[in-house]
Amino acid sequence: METTQVAPASMIDRMVSVLELLRGHQRLTLAQVSRRSSLPRSSAHRILQRLVDFGWVERDGYGYGLGIRVFELGSHVARHDPVHRAAALVLGDLHRSTGLSVHLSALSEDDVVHLERVGASGANWGVGTRSPAVHTAPGRALLAWLAPEELPHEVVSPPSPRGIRSAQQLERELAHVRRSGGLSIDAQLGMPGITVVAAPIGPEGVRARMALSVSGPCELVRVERVAGALRTTAMDIWCAATGVSRLPRRVKAPTRIPSTDVAM
Amino acid sequence: METTQVAPASMIDRMVSVLELLRGHQRLTLAQVSRRSSLPRSSAHRILQRLVDFGWVERDGYGYGLGIRVFELGSHVARHDPVHRAAALVLGDLHRSTGLSVHLSALSEDDVVHLERVGASGANWGVGTRSPAVHTAPGRALLAWLAPEELPHEVVSPPSPRGIRSAQQLERELAHVRRSGGLSIDAQLGMPGITVVAAPIGPEGVRARMALSVSGPCELVRVERVAGALRTTAMDIWCAATGVSRLPRRVKAPTRIPSTDVAM
Repeated sequence: METTQVAPASMIDRMVSVLELLRGHQRLTLAQVSRRSSLPRSSAHRILQRLVDFGWVERDGYGYGLGIRVFELGSHVARHDPVHRAAALVLGDLHRSTGLSVHLSALSEDDVVHLERVGASGANWGVGTRSPAVHTAPGRALLAWLAPEELPHEVVSPPSPRGIRSAQQLERELAHVRRSGGLSIDAQLGMPGITVVAAPIGPEGVRARMALSVSGPCELVRVERVAGALRTTAMDIWCAATGVSRLPRRVKAPTRIPSTDVAM
Repeated sequence: METTQVAPASMIDRMVSVLELLRGHQRLTLAQVSRRSSLPRSSAHRILQRLVDFGWVERDGYGYGLGIRVFELGSHVARHDPVHRAAALVLGDLHRSTGLSVHLSALSEDDVVHLERVGASGANWGVGTRSPAVHTAPGRALLAWLAPEELPHEVVSPPSPRGIRSAQQLERELAHVRRSGGLSIDAQLGMPGITVVAAPIGPEGVRARMALSVSGPCELVRVERVAGALRTTAMDIWCAATGVSRLPRRVKAPTRIPSTDVAM
């Protein structure tokens, strides 16, 4: 008589597995969904059909893909996060003032998920994609303030010949980040020819959820020059998100002038 | 013996209702989820807990909110749509050349869902939000090419005193859009003081899924001037998304120079 107890939980698992499966593809047929999810065809069909009813899945001939309701759901996550929302307003300014690509990234288990980007157009580091935190500058900017037992248990093989290969090498890098007051500098560790500079968004020395980074060809990135703009923007985002004044107990911070762009 | 047939479908409904409920809020307690979804507390708890295991829901003390996995899922919808992907690369250019806010919107049932925006910062028309298609310029640019029986059955009350109030008024507006070759011009119909100009993305006279629009204060929007840039950008997006050459059978279209920004 376990059926009623087990069925619902397993139904959530099935539905999640079908949606996560569609995430990796533009369109899949019923036969493909059934085979790749190891669900009986009838069961896969019933789940897909119900998700089509809700607008979570769209059917196009024989192909099934994620629907616009899922896009709306995902957008909510960004819109309701105060740090994400504050960052979205100023990433363009940082891109223009540095001439470099700008990313906002969050820690999620052992990965960073890239939440926003301005000024880059390639497939790498796209919005909504994951990279192992160990192998990215924003990832290490966030890992630096975790307790040792929270760090990734193993270092997956690096994407670049100069990448991090061992727990000892990771610890040296994180110590370097802590000595730099949180600034994480990645010269060709993640990708040959590319320098990335990242800073956590939050008070110095405290664990942060999100990091801001700028990246570009090594010959264009002047680390000393961009570090100031990066730190200032990260601090501006934190202050805007938390409502904390920039310079407490000394002089009053100048009021940020809101954008005059129209609201629609 | 209907139980096994009914339980799975209803479980999908429950899970969808819990996630859609969290979409409207930053954080909800278990009691709030249970009350607002009309699910027994134990059932709501089991669903939330399993969704937390998958990273679809995040728990923060007593509060539950949508998790980063849902953001990744939603980003996929944008990343895998060729029109959306092509548009994301050129919206910034249209914003800079016109000085106006730019939106990319898609038709979803009787609404438009706003997929991208550049140059606006207010809560209206935010990414991932819906507006009744009838009351927006991009909505009417898309409705104009639908069959009469596909149009919204009733006109919901307009957001502006000058807004559309009846099916007859809507039909006159759509006829005007068709005579303008698809261009939909909204002078204060949707919002007092604001002019919006929209164009569908696709060949003229054919139903399109997405529309491009620019908006700004009435005194700043020169409709004749922006119409050209809007149409050209919409056509560029369509050509990039479908791989169709801009000027078939006449002269070869100049190759679009890809962005030189780095890929990360």
